[in-house]
Amino acid sequence: MARVLTPQAEDFPRWYQDILAKAELAENGPVRGTMVIRPYGYALWERMQAEVDARIKAAGARNAYFPLFIPESYLKKEAEHVEGFSPELAVVTIGGGKELEEPVVVRPTSETIINASFAKWVQSYRDLPLLINQWANVVRWEMRPRLFLRTSEFLWQEGHTAHATSDDARAYAQRILRDVYQDFMVDVLALPVIVGRKTARERFAGATNTMTLELMTGDGKALQMGTSHELGQNFAKAFGIEFLAPSSQREFAWQTSWGTSTRMVGGLIMGHGDDSGLRVPPRLAPTQVAVVLVKAEAGEAAAAIAGSLRDIGVRVELDDRADVPFGRRAVDWELKGVPIRVEVGPRDLAEGNVTLVRRIPGTKTPTALAAVADAVRVALVEDQTALYAEAERKRDARISDAGTIDDVIEAVGAGGWARMPWADLGPEGEAKLAERAVTVRCLVRADGSLPATGDEPDVIAYCAKAY
Amino acid sequence: MARVLTPQAEDFPRWYQDILAKAELAENGPVRGTMVIRPYGYALWERMQAEVDARIKAAGARNAYFPLFIPESYLKKEAEHVEGFSPELAVVTIGGGKELEEPVVVRPTSETIINASFAKWVQSYRDLPLLINQWANVVRWEMRPRLFLRTSEFLWQEGHTAHATSDDARAYAQRILRDVYQDFMVDVLALPVIVGRKTARERFAGATNTMTLELMTGDGKALQMGTSHELGQNFAKAFGIEFLAPSSQREFAWQTSWGTSTRMVGGLIMGHGDDSGLRVPPRLAPTQVAVVLVKAEAGEAAAAIAGSLRDIGVRVELDDRADVPFGRRAVDWELKGVPIRVEVGPRDLAEGNVTLVRRIPGTKTPTALAAVADAVRVALVEDQTALYAEAERKRDARISDAGTIDDVIEAVGAGGWARMPWADLGPEGEAKLAERAVTVRCLVRADGSLPATGDEPDVIAYCAKAY
Repeated sequence: MARVLTPQAEDFPRWYQDILAKAELAENGPVRGTMVIRPYGYALWERMQAEVDARIKAAGARNAYFPLFIPESYLKKEAEHVEGFSPELAVVTIGGGKELEEPVVVRPTSETIINASFAKWVQSYRDLPLLINQWANVVRWEMRPRLFLRTSEFLWQEGHTAHATSDDARAYAQRILRDVYQDFMVDVLALPVIVGRKTARERFAGATNTMTLELMTGDGKALQMGTSHELGQNFAKAFGIEFLAPSSQREFAWQTSWGTSTRMVGGLIMGHGDDSGLRVPPRLAPTQVAVVLVKAEAGEAAAAIAGSLRDIGVRVELDDRADVPFGRRAVDWELKGVPIRVEVGPRDLAEGNVTLVRRIPGTKTPTALAAVADAVRVALVEDQTALYAEAERKRDARISDAGTIDDVIEAVGAGGWARMPWADLGPEGEAKLAERAVTVRCLVRADGSLPATGDEPDVIAYCAKAY
Repeated sequence: MARVLTPQAEDFPRWYQDILAKAELAENGPVRGTMVIRPYGYALWERMQAEVDARIKAAGARNAYFPLFIPESYLKKEAEHVEGFSPELAVVTIGGGKELEEPVVVRPTSETIINASFAKWVQSYRDLPLLINQWANVVRWEMRPRLFLRTSEFLWQEGHTAHATSDDARAYAQRILRDVYQDFMVDVLALPVIVGRKTARERFAGATNTMTLELMTGDGKALQMGTSHELGQNFAKAFGIEFLAPSSQREFAWQTSWGTSTRMVGGLIMGHGDDSGLRVPPRLAPTQVAVVLVKAEAGEAAAAIAGSLRDIGVRVELDDRADVPFGRRAVDWELKGVPIRVEVGPRDLAEGNVTLVRRIPGTKTPTALAAVADAVRVALVEDQTALYAEAERKRDARISDAGTIDDVIEAVGAGGWARMPWADLGPEGEAKLAERAVTVRCLVRADGSLPATGDEPDVIAYCAKAY
């Protein structure tokens, strides 16, 4: 097969650019840092949305929608928040042909505008918890854009909640982290994310605690796939979210916010892609099976197979473009990472067979017509598991234990992550690593659970270069 | 029951404001003209999205996403288009803390930016038709905002297509109009929209033909619920969308665009609402049945009924808030327009019954426990049909035939629509009506089909005041 993509080992960023173009996933928009998400890229995102949305609803949150435009004054109400976001803002100064009296900011995130509503909606402890999610676009002016990973505009969901107690807020932030995000990333995306707590340095602007899910990419870097924050009472005090407690005292609410974005599409590509293209886990795949007609005469059989797979609930696309050379179409399905191809050709058919091509293990197997449905069903399950196992194995092989800052820098320089006791590293060590563009991705207890504070003893720091 | 809403007959706009607040549908955002869509309002929109999206996909279009920010220069490429949208633009002049070299416009619609991509994607007739849809927010600075009907930011879908021939483009614009929009509005929203062609005066800025679906509201005005445009080759020439035809000639593509928005939520409210609140057609309803616990002791029975309805595919919400007075909850379900309430109280239960309350016919019927599922199933179907029939009857009673412009003005002044032969009215009559804020909503053939041109003989003009 002719070389379609720059090999990963030769130039990983170039491979990433190639795959975005060749698999028709996304391209640059005309305004710096903006992105056009092409239909196949968007179909991946739609599947992510459906899966994440169902889990968010199961966790009791309801969707709503808040305005794109935020008065500049709102942003300034929470001191750390405005400091964090000011350098990245896009500002509308002209509306309806006139200079605006107060400029409006295009939302970089919606804590401020949503909490202004919460202040109206929350009166009594009976109104709590208030659990809201929004699917929206946000804008953070980006100087070094990279499609899907860091764009000036991106699509995301952002959850915002208010609770009567700190404990309830903490439990909910963790529930979202585990039952929504980790469950989705592990079970659907087949990505072995490391779940931990951010250091104070890496915390969200305005949060008291940020928890994160970190992915190792194919080149051994780290990508933050999602975050869940405890906001304490910071925004509640800034926006006046007060409630009458059962004790008849007025109290400020405790809050959380949490988000995942189109960056996950970048994570999917960088987590599973290989030199032939993308590899999409079956549970996510918008097209799980491509039934590919080899030659026109097999058209009827191909359509029948596609129909029978659809009937058992498989997401199928029939590729009957007999006027496009078969080889080109096969390369295209490889590039797009569709888990299974059922190739239907007259020669195989004469023997009662088709060819089952599995993208993840890379096998090609002649399969009797009557056995296709079962073979597909089995392959979809097996390959989901295999993809996760492969990613986990590769990840673990690239994580080394470091005893000193120099060890960390060496391990990261060699294209991996390093693990070091946080007690030995500390904020000073973290600052030194930052000079070498190495960051502490998260803190995790030895048993994999979440540290309750940033300075718990026996906590491990995962260090890496980040996208 | 205490009066909860201003009666429609007393003050329709006030009734509309009341219902938005009391049914917790939406409220004003802090920036003029923006809107907060509250969870119940958003749930209605999500159901609309799901139904419209499925029909768009069935019509062969694929979803994608294009940037929010458009270079100012793009807007200027199509002369009528820029003229139409310039007064409504929001302009970003500051990004990342710096004055931008070229200001960027927040999309008021995406013809320009999408067609810039189409120019790259379309090379050969084999690339056509290219059928793309986008779900997005758009911004049109609004001086006289009204929630859902006219807001500075709104949510919508916008379809954009390119075709090899004018006939193919025309057929597709009509297919979207009929098979997607009309089918959805009639079959799901139960709204008897009038489908017709816009006059030249009312055409979309840049289109060669605009087709529309017009709703009569509860106060006898008109609301444009969706439009489908033929764009001819206007944008193709402005953006260079050329393809190699089978003849080996280079030709410009023929295009369409089409959209529906959160305005449909306003149409739903104004089309079906009554003095007790909203009435949601069963096929749309996010909650089709509320199982309402009268008193705490009936909790187990209520949960069992909710479960058994869910099992047969009904969208159910269990209202077990025994600490909130029953009467208040009943009013709330009326306001929200949930089609059916199953009230479960200990007294009824002792006799093996529950009470079935149907919002649309307004009936209350004691129903044996074993018969609930069947009764619900039947009611959901009957009430969908009844709601449409009622809206159609009311609409027809308010449309009068007019012979002169004065007749039109009189009929519209009396709170209805007028129908007048377009040959007798014409562009001059249309201009005169406009002075009285009466517009020609659309042109329709006597048999209800679409006129092929704006000056076909025997065409009827529907005239009304519009929202």
